[in-house]
Amino acid sequence: MALFENIRFLDTTLRDGEQTPGVALKTEEKVWIARKLDELGVDIIEAGSAITSEGEREAIRAVSAEGLDAEICSYCRIMQQDVDFALECDVDSIHLVAPVSDLHISVKLKKDRAALKEMALNAVEYAKDHGLIVELSGEDASRADLDFLKDLYKAGVEVGADRVCFCDTVGLLVPERTTEIFKELSSSIDVPVAVHCHNDFGLAVSNTVAALNAGAREAHMTVNGIGERAGNAALEEVVMVLEWLYKRDTCIKTNELYKVSRLVSRLTGLAVAPNKSLVGGNAFTHEAGIHVHGLLADTSTYEPITPESIGRERQIVLGKHAGKSSVTLALKEQGLDVDDSQLNEIVSRVKELGDHGKRVTDADLQTIAETVLDIYRESKVKLEDFTVVSGNRATPTASVRLTVDGKEIVEAATGDGPVDAAFEGIRKAVSGVADIQLEEYHVDAITGGTDALVEVLVKLSKDGKMVTSRGARTDIIMASVEAVINGINQLIQD
Amino acid sequence: MALFENIRFLDTTLRDGEQTPGVALKTEEKVWIARKLDELGVDIIEAGSAITSEGEREAIRAVSAEGLDAEICSYCRIMQQDVDFALECDVDSIHLVAPVSDLHISVKLKKDRAALKEMALNAVEYAKDHGLIVELSGEDASRADLDFLKDLYKAGVEVGADRVCFCDTVGLLVPERTTEIFKELSSSIDVPVAVHCHNDFGLAVSNTVAALNAGAREAHMTVNGIGERAGNAALEEVVMVLEWLYKRDTCIKTNELYKVSRLVSRLTGLAVAPNKSLVGGNAFTHEAGIHVHGLLADTSTYEPITPESIGRERQIVLGKHAGKSSVTLALKEQGLDVDDSQLNEIVSRVKELGDHGKRVTDADLQTIAETVLDIYRESKVKLEDFTVVSGNRATPTASVRLTVDGKEIVEAATGDGPVDAAFEGIRKAVSGVADIQLEEYHVDAITGGTDALVEVLVKLSKDGKMVTSRGARTDIIMASVEAVINGINQLIQD
Repeated sequence: MALFENIRFLDTTLRDGEQTPGVALKTEEKVWIARKLDELGVDIIEAGSAITSEGEREAIRAVSAEGLDAEICSYCRIMQQDVDFALECDVDSIHLVAPVSDLHISVKLKKDRAALKEMALNAVEYAKDHGLIVELSGEDASRADLDFLKDLYKAGVEVGADRVCFCDTVGLLVPERTTEIFKELSSSIDVPVAVHCHNDFGLAVSNTVAALNAGAREAHMTVNGIGERAGNAALEEVVMVLEWLYKRDTCIKTNELYKVSRLVSRLTGLAVAPNKSLVGGNAFTHEAGIHVHGLLADTSTYEPITPESIGRERQIVLGKHAGKSSVTLALKEQGLDVDDSQLNEIVSRVKELGDHGKRVTDADLQTIAETVLDIYRESKVKLEDFTVVSGNRATPTASVRLTVDGKEIVEAATGDGPVDAAFEGIRKAVSGVADIQLEEYHVDAITGGTDALVEVLVKLSKDGKMVTSRGARTDIIMASVEAVINGINQLIQD
Repeated sequence: MALFENIRFLDTTLRDGEQTPGVALKTEEKVWIARKLDELGVDIIEAGSAITSEGEREAIRAVSAEGLDAEICSYCRIMQQDVDFALECDVDSIHLVAPVSDLHISVKLKKDRAALKEMALNAVEYAKDHGLIVELSGEDASRADLDFLKDLYKAGVEVGADRVCFCDTVGLLVPERTTEIFKELSSSIDVPVAVHCHNDFGLAVSNTVAALNAGAREAHMTVNGIGERAGNAALEEVVMVLEWLYKRDTCIKTNELYKVSRLVSRLTGLAVAPNKSLVGGNAFTHEAGIHVHGLLADTSTYEPITPESIGRERQIVLGKHAGKSSVTLALKEQGLDVDDSQLNEIVSRVKELGDHGKRVTDADLQTIAETVLDIYRESKVKLEDFTVVSGNRATPTASVRLTVDGKEIVEAATGDGPVDAAFEGIRKAVSGVADIQLEEYHVDAITGGTDALVEVLVKLSKDGKMVTSRGARTDIIMASVEAVINGINQLIQD
C-alpha cells in the first residue's frame, strides 16, 4: 500500500466540469470554487482552457492571482498558440493533451502517428522553454496502441515532460484492464503517471481507484463528477473510497466535501441526483420504517459512515414505510403524547398518505395526530380572500383578507413577483401574532404543460422553531399561499 | 467467460427502489413498470414487501395477476407472518432476508447467531412447505463472518433454499474483495449465488460486475440505481458494462433501456442527474466546440456507444465552447447563409453569451445572426400591455394587448392558473397570423427565496416547425410570457 504515499489530486471541475453543456461560470464564481478546492487540500487546479475565449483567460488569470497553495493549470492542445495563451494567464503548469488513438489522430488531426509525435514533442519543448510544468496527456489512450503510447510518453519525458497522463476519454476502461495498464506504465515511465477517467459506463471511480492501486501517482477528478456527457470521476467518491475502504490518508479535508459539493451544484446549476453517493439529498436520509428501528439503536446498522464525516446531517422522514418508532419520535418533537391504539391508528394513516405517493410533512402529521386524538383545534389563521395582480407594467401586488382567531385582518403588499407579493402580504397580516420567516421555498422542476400540477414545499420558522408544509395546485401562486398558511397554522398553534 | 452463461437479473425497482424517501407508486404505476421490465427481459421482479401495508399487497397481487414471463417475488423478513402475507399476494418466490452480521443480529434482532439461524431455517422450511421459490439472503453480509455465512447458506440449502444472496447492505465492498468472496461462495454453495449491492461509495455497479465475473449467477439491480440512501446498482449500467465492455449477451433488450429509465423517473418523481451514465440528460449531448468537429467526422471519437443502442438520440447544443462547425450547422437549420468573417463574429457573440452562463437557444442564435448580418426585422409581435389576476376566489384571468405587424389586438383568457391563462391569451391574440402550440414548458427547480430568478424554457411549434426560447425574471409569469413572445416572433418571422 506504500504505493499510495504520494498521490496527488488534480481537480478539473473548472475545466472538464465546466464543459458540461449549458454551464458557464463567471470569473468570480471560478475564483470562489478554486479557493474552496484549495482549502479542501486539492494539489492541482485545472482552471480552464486558455485558448477558449477572453472570458476564460480572465478567469484563469484571476485564479492564478489568488496565490493559492495549489498548482494552477491550464488545458492546452499540442499547439504553440495554446501554450502562449496559457502563459498569458500566469499558470504554473499545463495539461498538454495529445490525441493518441489512431481514430483520434486520423479523424481529428488528419495526421499520422509520426506527425502527432512531432507536434507533441515540439509543444513540450516549447512549454518547458517557457518555464511551465508540463503534464503530457494521451487523449483516448484507452483505445490507443499501448506500445506507441509508452514510446510517446518516454520521448516526452526525454524533452522535459514532468508527468504523463492516461485519459480514458470515452470511459471504456474496466478495473482489471486499468490495473494491467497502470502496472505497466508506472514500472516503465520515470515520471509520475496520472489517471483521467470518464464515467460513460459508471466505472470512473472504480477505474480511478484501480489505477491508484496499480501505481498511478495522480488522479484527475471533478466535484460531483460533473463534466461532458456522463462526466468525470467524482472527487468526493474517490477520496472517501480511499479513506474509508482502503484506509489511506488522502490529505483531503473530508468534512468539507459536502459544502464544496453544494457550492459547485449551486454555481453550475447542475442538480445532484437524490441518490448520488455521499452528496445526494437522500444519501443520509432514512424513510421511517424497519430500518429506523435499527438506526435508533446504532446508526452504523444502515450507514457506512457518519454523515458528519463529510460535513452533513442525518435526516429521517415519514412515508409509507413509516413504523411505530419513527412516528413516536416525530410526535414527541411536536409535543404530542399518544397511547398504543392511537399510535397504531396514526401510523396506519401516515402509511395511507405515503401509499398515495406523498412525503408526510410536519403539518400532515399534525393534522393526522389531531384527528386521531380528537383534538379539535380550529385553524387560527384562515384565508378568506386573496387576490394578486401582475403584469408587464404592473408592480406585482397582492391583497389578503385573513381571520386570525376570528378577527379579520386585511393587508396588501408588493413584491419581486406575484409569489413574493403574496408571501409578504400574508407575513404582514399575521405579524401581530407571530413573526414568521420563510427559510426555504422549493418547487420541483415543472415539465409538461402550463396546466401541470405544481407542488410547493416551504420551510417556515418562528423564534427558531421550524416546520415544513406543502401546497399543491395547478396554480403556482395558490399552491404557495396554501403551503404558507398551513405552515403558519402549525407554528402558532402551540 | 463461460461463467456468465446463466446470469439472471432480479429487478428491485419496485421494492428497494420504492423505499426511496418520498416515493410511493400507485398500484397501476407498479403494474406499468412491471410490464416494461418484463418486456425488457428481466428474469425476476421483486414487486414489493408484502408485510408493509394493504396498499402494497394490492399492488403485488396486481403485478402477480399480469401473467408476465418474469418470476414475481416479494421481500420477506425471516418471520412466518411475512411469508403468509407474501402467499396472500400469489407471488412465485420470496427474497427472504436474514440479518447476518453480528451488528445486525445483536442490535436489530437482539438475538445471537444460533437463534438467528434457527429463525432463518424455520422461515425457509415454512415457505418451501407452501410451494414458494426461496432465495435466502444475508443482510449486511459484507460485515458478517464469512464462515458463519457459508454455514447458514449451506443449512438453508439443505432445508430447501433454491438460491442464496449476498447483500452489501451499506455499500462497503470493493471489487477485489467482491471477487474473493464470490469465488469462495460460488465454489462452496450448491445453488446459484446472487449479489445485491448498494452504492454508498459509488462502487455498486463495479462490485456487481466483479461478482458476476467471479461466479455469481444472479444480480439485483434497480432502474436508474434508485433506492434508499445512495441507491442500488443501476440496471442500465450493469447491463451495458456486460454487453459492451465484457462482450456478453445479457438477453436484455438494451434499446428499451432509455424508455424504461424515463418511465421510472417520471413515475417515481426522482430526477436523473444530467451527468448520469447512459441515461442522464447530457450522456449523449455535446456542447459545440472542439469535440463537435471530431464528432461530425466520426461519432465514435467522443461517444463510447451510439445513443441509438439504448434507444435515444444525440443532441448538440451551443454555448461558450461553440466552434465554427457547430454554429454553421445550426445556422443552416435556420436557413441562414454566412460568409467567413460573419461566421467568426457570430461564433464570438455566441461564446460571449455562453461566457455569461447561458445556454444559447434557437431564438438567441437568430437574434445574434440577424444583428451580424444586419438584417433588421422588427419583431412582428410586440407585447404592449399584460395583466393577470389570480386568487382563491378569482378565476385566473389574463388580458393582453399585442401589436402584430403594428396592428393592435386585445384579448383575454382564463386558465388553470395564471401562467396557463397568460399563454391562452397570447395564443388567441396571435391566432389570426399563426396557430401556435406549446410543446413543452419547463422551469428548473426553484430553491431559495420567493425572489429567486426564475428561468422558463419553452418549446413552441407552428405547422410542425419547432423553436426553443427563454424568459428569465424573478416573476415566473412574466418570465413565461417573455419566453412565449420570443418564440412566437421566431416562428412567424419567415
